[in-house]
Amino acid sequence: MPAFRVGILGATGAVGQKFIRLLQDHPWFTITALGASERSAGQAFREATVWREPSFLSDQVASMVVRACVPEEFDDVDFVFSGLDSGVAGEVEPAFAAAGISVISNAKNFRMHPDVPLVIPEVNPSHLDWVKRQNWSGEGAVDENSAKKKGFIVTNPNCVAIPLTMSLKPLYDAFGVKQVTVTSMQAISGAGYPGVPSMDIMGNLIPYIPDEESKIIEEPLKMLGVPAGSGNEFPIYPTAVRVPVLEGHTLAMVVELDRGGVTEEMVRAAMTDYVSPVADEDLPSTVDPAIIVHTDPFSPRPRQHADQASGMATHVGRIRCTETVQGTIVSYITMAHNTIRGAAGAAILNAELLASKGYFGV
Amino acid sequence: MPAFRVGILGATGAVGQKFIRLLQDHPWFTITALGASERSAGQAFREATVWREPSFLSDQVASMVVRACVPEEFDDVDFVFSGLDSGVAGEVEPAFAAAGISVISNAKNFRMHPDVPLVIPEVNPSHLDWVKRQNWSGEGAVDENSAKKKGFIVTNPNCVAIPLTMSLKPLYDAFGVKQVTVTSMQAISGAGYPGVPSMDIMGNLIPYIPDEESKIIEEPLKMLGVPAGSGNEFPIYPTAVRVPVLEGHTLAMVVELDRGGVTEEMVRAAMTDYVSPVADEDLPSTVDPAIIVHTDPFSPRPRQHADQASGMATHVGRIRCTETVQGTIVSYITMAHNTIRGAAGAAILNAELLASKGYFGV
Amino acid sequence: MPAFRVGILGATGAVGQKFIRLLQDHPWFTITALGASERSAGQAFREATVWREPSFLSDQVASMVVRACVPEEFDDVDFVFSGLDSGVAGEVEPAFAAAGISVISNAKNFRMHPDVPLVIPEVNPSHLDWVKRQNWSGEGAVDENSAKKKGFIVTNPNCVAIPLTMSLKPLYDAFGVKQVTVTSMQAISGAGYPGVPSMDIMGNLIPYIPDEESKIIEEPLKMLGVPAGSGNEFPIYPTAVRVPVLEGHTLAMVVELDRGGVTEEMVRAAMTDYVSPVADEDLPSTVDPAIIVHTDPFSPRPRQHADQASGMATHVGRIRCTETVQGTIVSYITMAHNTIRGAAGAAILNAELLASKGYFGV
Amino acid sequence: MPAFRVGILGATGAVGQKFIRLLQDHPWFTITALGASERSAGQAFREATVWREPSFLSDQVASMVVRACVPEEFDDVDFVFSGLDSGVAGEVEPAFAAAGISVISNAKNFRMHPDVPLVIPEVNPSHLDWVKRQNWSGEGAVDENSAKKKGFIVTNPNCVAIPLTMSLKPLYDAFGVKQVTVTSMQAISGAGYPGVPSMDIMGNLIPYIPDEESKIIEEPLKMLGVPAGSGNEFPIYPTAVRVPVLEGHTLAMVVELDRGGVTEEMVRAAMTDYVSPVADEDLPSTVDPAIIVHTDPFSPRPRQHADQASGMATHVGRIRCTETVQGTIVSYITMAHNTIRGAAGAAILNAELLASKGYFGV
Repeated sequence: MPAFRVGILGATGAVGQKFIRLLQDHPWFTITALGASERSAGQAFREATVWREPSFLSDQVASMVVRACVPEEFDDVDFVFSGLDSGVAGEVEPAFAAAGISVISNAKNFRMHPDVPLVIPEVNPSHLDWVKRQNWSGEGAVDENSAKKKGFIVTNPNCVAIPLTMSLKPLYDAFGVKQVTVTSMQAISGAGYPGVPSMDIMGNLIPYIPDEESKIIEEPLKMLGVPAGSGNEFPIYPTAVRVPVLEGHTLAMVVELDRGGVTEEMVRAAMTDYVSPVADEDLPSTVDPAIIVHTDPFSPRPRQHADQASGMATHVGRIRCTETVQGTIVSYITMAHNTIRGAAGAAILNAELLASKGYFGV
Repeated sequence: MPAFRVGILGATGAVGQKFIRLLQDHPWFTITALGASERSAGQAFREATVWREPSFLSDQVASMVVRACVPEEFDDVDFVFSGLDSGVAGEVEPAFAAAGISVISNAKNFRMHPDVPLVIPEVNPSHLDWVKRQNWSGEGAVDENSAKKKGFIVTNPNCVAIPLTMSLKPLYDAFGVKQVTVTSMQAISGAGYPGVPSMDIMGNLIPYIPDEESKIIEEPLKMLGVPAGSGNEFPIYPTAVRVPVLEGHTLAMVVELDRGGVTEEMVRAAMTDYVSPVADEDLPSTVDPAIIVHTDPFSPRPRQHADQASGMATHVGRIRCTETVQGTIVSYITMAHNTIRGAAGAAILNAELLASKGYFGV
Repeated sequence: MPAFRVGILGATGAVGQKFIRLLQDHPWFTITALGASERSAGQAFREATVWREPSFLSDQVASMVVRACVPEEFDDVDFVFSGLDSGVAGEVEPAFAAAGISVISNAKNFRMHPDVPLVIPEVNPSHLDWVKRQNWSGEGAVDENSAKKKGFIVTNPNCVAIPLTMSLKPLYDAFGVKQVTVTSMQAISGAGYPGVPSMDIMGNLIPYIPDEESKIIEEPLKMLGVPAGSGNEFPIYPTAVRVPVLEGHTLAMVVELDRGGVTEEMVRAAMTDYVSPVADEDLPSTVDPAIIVHTDPFSPRPRQHADQASGMATHVGRIRCTETVQGTIVSYITMAHNTIRGAAGAAILNAELLASKGYFGV
Repeated sequence: MPAFRVGILGATGAVGQKFIRLLQDHPWFTITALGASERSAGQAFREATVWREPSFLSDQVASMVVRACVPEEFDDVDFVFSGLDSGVAGEVEPAFAAAGISVISNAKNFRMHPDVPLVIPEVNPSHLDWVKRQNWSGEGAVDENSAKKKGFIVTNPNCVAIPLTMSLKPLYDAFGVKQVTVTSMQAISGAGYPGVPSMDIMGNLIPYIPDEESKIIEEPLKMLGVPAGSGNEFPIYPTAVRVPVLEGHTLAMVVELDRGGVTEEMVRAAMTDYVSPVADEDLPSTVDPAIIVHTDPFSPRPRQHADQASGMATHVGRIRCTETVQGTIVSYITMAHNTIRGAAGAAILNAELLASKGYFGV
């Protein structure tokens, strides 16, 4: 694999810093440019922000001069990662794509756009092909021959939607899904920095996270190929709660299956035996197995397990089945690292698959 | 109301200490005797345990000599509260009842016994009458004339079942209930002392609480008058999670109603307008309203709200309705103080109602 | 005591809200006016801020219209409490004093001003008389006859300086003090709201609190009557650390006494027997004893003890003495509620003493 | 370096598990035997305990059969690490030494024994030679020729004494030390498992740790070569406090130097330039620098820094100097990972040095 030069938009924020940490030693991608707000532009990265990640910041990155988030400042990169706030991503990302610089984005703005792939490589890699339908420059649809020269936008889902969809996919394929109820107990890191005041969350929980539940309802359906309005979609009833945990969103799931007679062993087998459609691609950020099924009933726990497998696994535990006349009800816990598997790591894995498939040229 | 002399069984434990705190200044009940294990018996209370409640322990109680939990040591009380562990309650409580000393118990042992009332006064006060069917001494059923001379057992539900049932009762009455899904995020105080190791829960959550979920499934149905096997029961799908909160269990509820067309305003009105069947009894531990409905979406939060209204209210917030072809789905948050409203305070309220109705004689 | 009408400057902030909570049911003082920034002025209090105190906000206060912090808006009050940020207190407080409206301030700006009393009533009440030396309007010194008509400023110390000085005063009087070393482990509430980000403090401590240590060095000396430069001052070596505690600053003190032969019993007796010089004034916020000496070595602990005695006590524990050739070294723990005893409650107690002594006129 | 076969005594406890984690991939030491209480003996390790370390337990270790802690069960090892509780270490460790199996111990029992080295390799490696004076079998002193065949005991200090002594050593060498005051804010992991109840420590601190302060007073003096009674010892005034932090003890130090005129730059230089006497030994667990001096005043913080440098560094920050007529007073913060640098890692480093120096034979 040739080396790709990458830029990071929103580099000074919480997601941006996570991108930097994960990319500092990446085998394929080299950080070449950092973009942030006008206020930070022109300063060395180490002057423009306080480094909050747990690992060391390399001098090479620390001394990079931050650039404004405009395409003309990024003509030396092969593509960019976007950790931009949704307040600016809506303008900045299309501008980059129109200028021929593809954007691998963690922002929410274009996730539900019909031509923008919302992808978890282990779930719906074929959706990446939709980038051919994109036309940000207005010069006409990207055809197969020219695709590699035009810029596109690819997104990853919300940090809750990822473990929800990852753990649901094997059940959806094997047994069909009629309805999902989920309580997501979400780590404070999901709110960025400074984020949640300690006065609010210490010894407490907060039963509401603005703008979160609508994403949990919509995004899984798009990824499973049954978007709202398709006629085959199923309802998801989410409650998003903030809890005093540092990293790792934990979801209590109750899934009504299409069919009955499904046992705990069958659910466990479906998850354990699930074969990622990109297992053969040998992507650097892939972990095997993608879903770790715990048999200890006290697991998974975010503090102990979120960091395992480089923070890229989806954990499942406490599988329980109840038989009803309408079908089997499956309850389980799922948990994933919200800022790695659920954000920066998800975007990097998307970029690895795109690189592997030749979408970035070469 | 005449003064009643009360004993406390399991006085040195977490629930026992809570009983003492709540009863130290009670207008009707005077602590007369404290019972604990053989190991503690014979010592002054202050020697037998470490006081962990946040308010002061009166010298009068501190200097009481702890007794063994046998009826002959309690012949100077009108009835006893039981905060016994389930490991011993199964033998001790019937022994007291057989000896003519009624037991108002927080233990789980007899909650599902067909002749033992499992009562929340605001929900099912009429069940108290079942004590007439009890016959612990084996001398024949207690008839109406002799009821007040014989000992009985009355129980209160599990700390999760209380806010679940309290908040569900108005919906059950008004709209009918088809199915309930609940994630209960439970405070560490529910595990007693020493209880949950800090190494396990700090910055973490634990997705399993042994023996908890079966109670959440069974107890609400008994209180609502539709016990398992009655043909009218509805399924409850619980997941019980321990969270780093001191006091206050928070439940994320998703309720499928029997009928459709139910709006958030209708749900709010049903809860706000709910009239407790014992509202006229003027019991010391009653709070009005029994259900506090919050409109701020960030409420209720356990650290801020559990202590309000003397810790005896059930809080509800985040009411949301979704219409489906099968009926309306109502999602909401409910929260209550788990060791007051959910344990010791619940037992005291039961005793107040029994006293008010003349069950303790006089 | 006649009723006094009081205003609160900085009413929407963390200290201001604490003033409101403590004054809502005060026997002498009636909240008449609330002041805040221009941004809030003109709005009802409940619209201008989010109420974060644990007790209910009365409708009467909630509906008050917030005023700008200029004296002409406060002509209907007898005096004001100031919970202003130091960024504005330096201008606003003298303006009020110059206009004849006395300011009882929790802000740091004038604490070290030679004519401004820095007072803990139990330590140095006589310093209040210094207000006669103040002349904010420039119309000449306030003499005894006119003092009550002119505005003055009285301050209370920093939240760490209060338990430090309260616990040190009996030792200073009885044995003399040569040197103090203190590590103050400070609650998050001391940083206001939003204050400390949870990402920084959860499962962590922060070994630095900007601008805190200089106050701990200077303020106790002024209150004990040996200000820096007086020749009799002793050095204080502080380290201020933020810890994940909600309310209550805990200080680990090591005090070198002037003399030797001082035993733990003598230290305990000096603290226990300490008689507050205002004990006879019968002030509403006084607690007796002012210093609670714990003998349980695991006490005091902030979560259990800060709220005791209405949050107005200074707690002491773990007294240990070591004999050296230079004198006795006393180590102990002291703890006090930082936003009640250490801030709003301290100012209210100052105002009560001023009222009792006739400083506000009658 | 040849491979050594090692046993771990107390393998199922918190320190024992940490030994296993750190030794699973050690380049010199191979885990050959695990010892625990009679209750666990005979079971596979994975059956005998719950694995609580954050990294995976290898199948190879998990399936080892736990042995009783008697020397005859350990004849296949070159030496043992002891993570035994002090309640049993006093008998077990000499029994092993007498049987010719050297013990590298983290237990406190023999730390102050005059013939037992209490060693931090970076501070006092030459003390290891004291093992020649040991004679546990009673067969006469170990001479140079036979030393390697006889068993000895080597200990590492208490988890607080390690960063205290490490950070103090450069100051002691360069400027002399007259007195030390220290508040140690200690992580919950120091109390083992289940250890500190969450009901005690959540949102709280506990101002007393039994048996801790005497070790902080004695052990540093022995390591610096000025044990109590030597005439050159200096007093240490410690206060040990438990705080809600997972890993990393943080010490607020105030050190009175023998001489004056010492500036912050001089202190920083002394620490930064400190050359470990074993720097040339190339031990696997050595980190360079041994002392990391932070210039950011908000550092070191335990959650961010304890794990850095494999958890083996001593961190220093907030260096401040005050000049007095008696000499310079230096205040600073020091922090180290209490269960790695302060316990299991310290013992392993001792063993590495012993191995490197040939004490285990070849």
